[in-house]
Amino acid sequence: MTAMSNRFRKMGKRISFVPTMGFLHEGHLALMREGRRLGDKLVLSIFVNPTQFGPGEDFKTYPRDFNRDCALAEKAGVDILFTPDARDLYVKGSETYLHQEKLPGHLCGLSRQGHFNGVMTIVAKLFNIVVPHFAVFGEKDFQQLAVIRRMTKDLNFDIQIVGHPTVREPDGLAMSSRNSKLTPAQRDAALSLITSLRNARRSVKNKQTDSNQLIDKATELIQSYPETKIDYIKICDPETLDDVSNIDRPVLMALAVKVGKTRLIDNMILTPDS
Amino acid sequence: MTAMSNRFRKMGKRISFVPTMGFLHEGHLALMREGRRLGDKLVLSIFVNPTQFGPGEDFKTYPRDFNRDCALAEKAGVDILFTPDARDLYVKGSETYLHQEKLPGHLCGLSRQGHFNGVMTIVAKLFNIVVPHFAVFGEKDFQQLAVIRRMTKDLNFDIQIVGHPTVREPDGLAMSSRNSKLTPAQRDAALSLITSLRNARRSVKNKQTDSNQLIDKATELIQSYPETKIDYIKICDPETLDDVSNIDRPVLMALAVKVGKTRLIDNMILTPDS
Repeated sequence: MTAMSNRFRKMGKRISFVPTMGFLHEGHLALMREGRRLGDKLVLSIFVNPTQFGPGEDFKTYPRDFNRDCALAEKAGVDILFTPDARDLYVKGSETYLHQEKLPGHLCGLSRQGHFNGVMTIVAKLFNIVVPHFAVFGEKDFQQLAVIRRMTKDLNFDIQIVGHPTVREPDGLAMSSRNSKLTPAQRDAALSLITSLRNARRSVKNKQTDSNQLIDKATELIQSYPETKIDYIKICDPETLDDVSNIDRPVLMALAVKVGKTRLIDNMILTPDS
Repeated sequence: MTAMSNRFRKMGKRISFVPTMGFLHEGHLALMREGRRLGDKLVLSIFVNPTQFGPGEDFKTYPRDFNRDCALAEKAGVDILFTPDARDLYVKGSETYLHQEKLPGHLCGLSRQGHFNGVMTIVAKLFNIVVPHFAVFGEKDFQQLAVIRRMTKDLNFDIQIVGHPTVREPDGLAMSSRNSKLTPAQRDAALSLITSLRNARRSVKNKQTDSNQLIDKATELIQSYPETKIDYIKICDPETLDDVSNIDRPVLMALAVKVGKTRLIDNMILTPDS
């Protein structure tokens, strides 16, 4: 992979990189289109990274379909499909990890201990192997994007991090590989996430700027569906992820909800009228 | 710096990198000669990295002589002298650090809490900025070399780490910028480090393979000098730095001693006759 990247770079080609865990959906395809637009060569990685799953999380049952992914990647015009093996990426005796002091202490980081250290470490490794000019990430995992932007800046990676808006099903559900696990009734309950976010956006436009009120309303709606269990609903600063109680500037509303055994996340920027 | 490196790389040039904290001595010059030999372009960085000094350590009094360093670098054929400013390297809000689980729990890592996390983080940053093919480090700080080798492998940096044997004064004292702080009496006491290592090497050749006996002998000699305070004397595995009690293979003997207010380190590989 690195040898090919070095060759591309010597030819003056700009390399775009889309790191994924596979089971590709329309969201990933949008990232790839953005990658193609930005660079001359497009690298897609598929790697279900064990170090970002905690004990009891769904590493083993995370959905996989390698053949389908290959066909989709080819159709999307991927130049290099990079599918490393965990035994090659984490060699025996491996003991170096990245960590951040503050960002992982928010949102998903609280219930997923060590998750973002695992994400940062694998992304840094992939950055060093792929040596891209651009790396494209979805905004659905907003905290992941914030963590990676911070990491890229702090460690002086010469890579432009590009965020891409969340791609949604026609009914509004954020695309996710994990959606494939939902039963029809759970699929219905899952819609309460985007409905809550849209309600909050409307409330903010109507001058309701008290975060707790908005969070209470979202909580009520989501809990009205069976099989839902709220992990968090937060309104926070989009860069530091610190809580914001009064919405006097654009804020991030982010939530994580277990629907049955499937953990779903979504988020939206809420902008008050000026 | 990165733009120049990218230009060199496009021209097919191989880049060697020698990171230093300045106050250059013959040891650094030897690293630079090795760098010149390995690559086409030689980058020297001078940066006294605040994050690798603990509270109460000698960050403020660490010796500096920028003009002399520039002259020496030029004479040594350095192509790029990179002297970043701490405010540019550690931007506001910076919070990403590297850490290792085991290696820093040995030798200097025990008395210098956080030191190797600071070293790893700055070296990773410099690697991303300089983008070298080779990076040359002295073997005097053997643990630093082990930590950086491990980090480079674990994070998949495409960089060859080259260790260079410790350069010594004619009387055997390991070259160090900190030697400039020693009084004549302390300079004399400092020689007990290399004398202890040479005694141990001789003992091992003479079939004395009990680590504790060798360590006791070294302790006795060093403590016979006034103004010395032993931090540690260890005999350990050169890769994992785990203690070795019976010397049945090549081992690392490493020591750290405060002479007056100046902390000195030295080490030697002890190889039993086969």
